Amino acid sequence: MPKHPVLVVGSIALDTVETPAGKRANILGGSATHFSISARHFAKVRLVGVVGRDFPEEHLRLFQNLSIDTTGLHTADGMTFRWHGRYVGTMSSAHTISVDLNVFADYKPDIPVSYRDSKFVLLGNASPHAQRRVLEQLDAPDFVLLDTMNFWIETENKTIKKMLPLVHGLCINHEEAMLLADKPSVARAIRTLLEWGVPVLVIKKAEHGAMIATRDFIFQVPAYLTEHVMDPTGAGDSFAGGFLGSLARAGITPKGLRRALVYGSVMGSLAVESFGTERLSKATASDIEDRYKALLAMISL
Amino acid sequence: MPKHPVLVVGSIALDTVETPAGKRANILGGSATHFSISARHFAKVRLVGVVGRDFPEEHLRLFQNLSIDTTGLHTADGMTFRWHGRYVGTMSSAHTISVDLNVFADYKPDIPVSYRDSKFVLLGNASPHAQRRVLEQLDAPDFVLLDTMNFWIETENKTIKKMLPLVHGLCINHEEAMLLADKPSVARAIRTLLEWGVPVLVIKKAEHGAMIATRDFIFQVPAYLTEHVMDPTGAGDSFAGGFLGSLARAGITPKGLRRALVYGSVMGSLAVESFGTERLSKATASDIEDRYKALLAMISL
Repeated sequence: MPKHPVLVVGSIALDTVETPAGKRANILGGSATHFSISARHFAKVRLVGVVGRDFPEEHLRLFQNLSIDTTGLHTADGMTFRWHGRYVGTMSSAHTISVDLNVFADYKPDIPVSYRDSKFVLLGNASPHAQRRVLEQLDAPDFVLLDTMNFWIETENKTIKKMLPLVHGLCINHEEAMLLADKPSVARAIRTLLEWGVPVLVIKKAEHGAMIATRDFIFQVPAYLTEHVMDPTGAGDSFAGGFLGSLARAGITPKGLRRALVYGSVMGSLAVESFGTERLSKATASDIEDRYKALLAMISL
Repeated sequence: MPKHPVLVVGSIALDTVETPAGKRANILGGSATHFSISARHFAKVRLVGVVGRDFPEEHLRLFQNLSIDTTGLHTADGMTFRWHGRYVGTMSSAHTISVDLNVFADYKPDIPVSYRDSKFVLLGNASPHAQRRVLEQLDAPDFVLLDTMNFWIETENKTIKKMLPLVHGLCINHEEAMLLADKPSVARAIRTLLEWGVPVLVIKKAEHGAMIATRDFIFQVPAYLTEHVMDPTGAGDSFAGGFLGSLARAGITPKGLRRALVYGSVMGSLAVESFGTERLSKATASDIEDRYKALLAMISL
């Protein structure tokens, strides 16, 4: 079993989601949630986040039943972060109907002393200043994966750029890569971002798979073709959980990075097969290994 | 060298193209042109198409210099098919400024007697009735690849559906696959189209690569990451030329189909590196093999 635990700092939310497959209200969501429930299939997970007084007891029990360490889960006065979104057609993007940040709005994550030796860390999508603050509380991590999004790239471009040499991996989608690098093609964006000092670039392409780029190699994996897409929410976070969890389990080598990308794609494809976290919570080791082999078969000559 | 020649029936055009990299007026274009200049790197090519009296002598000489058999190239009274298009930003789609079908409008392709024994055939994008007419003139082809587009899928859906069991491969992009099958995901579209009786489905995904699906396997190849995109016109036709040319050279086996998909991706990536057909006309065998190896490295664990 896992050599190294994985620390995740991110959002925990109550999501209301509408897709062509149906509607669910106030289900467990948030980037740290999806990431944790994915990564725990590969490694011990240490969760850092904030919820409100309204956060249902059953969700806390779920984290505990899945052996996710909730020492760093803070309950604040107020309401839990809520998001309401809708997907239509091929569900390629979410239309946000409402966002209430609530207790997440002014949250300044504190890393418990027992977490500070973490070697594998996900800095979930948040203000780069808050992400920087987390980084400063860690002893000597081996692999910090930075997640961000177009909002921060547009408003805090310089702050993000300064963080790149401080982390080990950047996890973004292909449009965000072009936006951050200010280049009109993925190929040129990759070169620019590697030149800016990030050692490992992980580029998510949703239904088109994912790509990893370093100065030494590029590796690409397709998306697993599932016929049962119910809810794409959290696919990217589940992908990141599989990637970083696999890396913590197998070690940071070129082959370990490539394998981790395939596991990320596996976990993203499982995540979309139910609303919320249900499918990933119940996935078995053989569900994961079967899909891993199926994905490798799809790229084997 | 090539065991089997490849027959292509399609358009020959004079294109005016505007991209962020510049503008070219009245350059050699058309689906059969791009296909031929790609496929001739792998096999002998037999061209069937129509041009007008205005078609420049230098383009005819180019076909001859590239050893493309022009027995089936008919010169009709009137002007050559002309297309004027513009690409902006990431060049992911063309904005058509004008189309003048001219001599292509009422063209009914006749297959020369010397071509009728062709074993590998591309039915380039055209009315499915015209495509059917070509099919009926052939002796006993081994692999007919059918190309089509959203216009025909919307207006001649039933005709296309009836043709699927008569051909060996269907080459379309992923949106067209979902449109033709009337399914909201590529996974479900693939299953439907295979059920309708097409043995080999080749799905183009532009900058996201390509996929081949049969009842026995799915294989995916990423796009080669080129930093030098000048003009995407003809990328899909160049892809199809590499695919069918490679198949004619190597034979119709599962591995031959997968290799052909990689060669298709190689030829598509070379095609976009110049305006018109220049880059593909001048590509050397080692340009092609180097890129083939680079693509395989990108999917090797």
